[in-house]
Amino acid sequence: MVMLRPLKKLDVRTEAILVNATPNKDLSSSRIASVDITYAGFDGESHSGLVRASCVRVRGQYAQGTEIRNTRQISIVSVEELALIADAMGIDTLEPEWMGANLLVSGIPDFSKIPPSTRMIFASGASLVVDLENSPCKYPGEIIERHHAGKGGLFPKAAYGRRGVTAWVEREGKITTGEAIEVHIPPQHIYQVPA
Amino acid sequence: MVMLRPLKKLDVRTEAILVNATPNKDLSSSRIASVDITYAGFDGESHSGLVRASCVRVRGQYAQGTEIRNTRQISIVSVEELALIADAMGIDTLEPEWMGANLLVSGIPDFSKIPPSTRMIFASGASLVVDLENSPCKYPGEIIERHHAGKGGLFPKAAYGRRGVTAWVEREGKITTGEAIEVHIPPQHIYQVPA
Repeated sequence: MVMLRPLKKLDVRTEAILVNATPNKDLSSSRIASVDITYAGFDGESHSGLVRASCVRVRGQYAQGTEIRNTRQISIVSVEELALIADAMGIDTLEPEWMGANLLVSGIPDFSKIPPSTRMIFASGASLVVDLENSPCKYPGEIIERHHAGKGGLFPKAAYGRRGVTAWVEREGKITTGEAIEVHIPPQHIYQVPA
Repeated sequence: MVMLRPLKKLDVRTEAILVNATPNKDLSSSRIASVDITYAGFDGESHSGLVRASCVRVRGQYAQGTEIRNTRQISIVSVEELALIADAMGIDTLEPEWMGANLLVSGIPDFSKIPPSTRMIFASGASLVVDLENSPCKYPGEIIERHHAGKGGLFPKAAYGRRGVTAWVEREGKITTGEAIEVHIPPQHIYQVPA
């Protein structure tokens, strides 16, 4: 049985690597050329950690503040979807910095819909596991507002379904801007939910 | 955006908890009434660990023996699918012990097809994340052969698509036989693979 198979037709690239080292300021992140990755996440990123306190996004599963494994170590967005969001907001460009993304990739169509448990394997060896599609919140809008007055409030709706995914580290390593990425997805089917 | 939603119509139960404490003997597991669960997996289980050496199942992703995060801490099978496998093999009962399962559950139809990133949340608080559908191998057949001579070789084919799933710990705790489980699944869709 094939458990995971590569999407061989894709040409996927690491367009930017970003970290937020000053979480008390705001959620924005800054570009770095390369980053060391451990099982805790990206070095120097405030969302790194083997565990985290559960947040509002999983309040249906855990009382807020419960210690759980951290599956939101890394926020990944795509060049193609940021362009769609920018277009929907009527602005020229939307920077991954403004939404606190850690990784900007290119070459994966409909990136936010990449399946859970997909592996993103970097040419140099490090590997990330996709947990879930990310959900837009209002905070990027506040940062966008500084760059495009009057536009920030448009972000949550424009970003719906295009906010990328969250991921965690399966294999440690070091990744570099420009590096190629292989995308390996699990078998797909729709689970028939009992009525 | 709803990230995970409970399958409220299901009545899911912990039918058995099992560990394999003697991996050098064979893969079979033994029932225990309750178990402490840490981020490494079930206490006393030989497949527990925060990391593992990659095996043949992920040779398409990692050279065999590569250190990766352990997403195969816990093997879960269902009462309903074991009955289907037994029926296909022409035997009365198939015990979860014989395939080294760690958890036997009831109440989830078509359990092996439960989506990746599904959360299985126990009434007492502990929680497991489903990674991937498991794949049958020949070793359970060797153990089944001891109990049902001439039948062991039928296992891999009979178990195809019914072998349950592998999972890892998202929230620590202690679980007990008989305990109820809530199943929370992510949004479902088929990712359109580029041609």
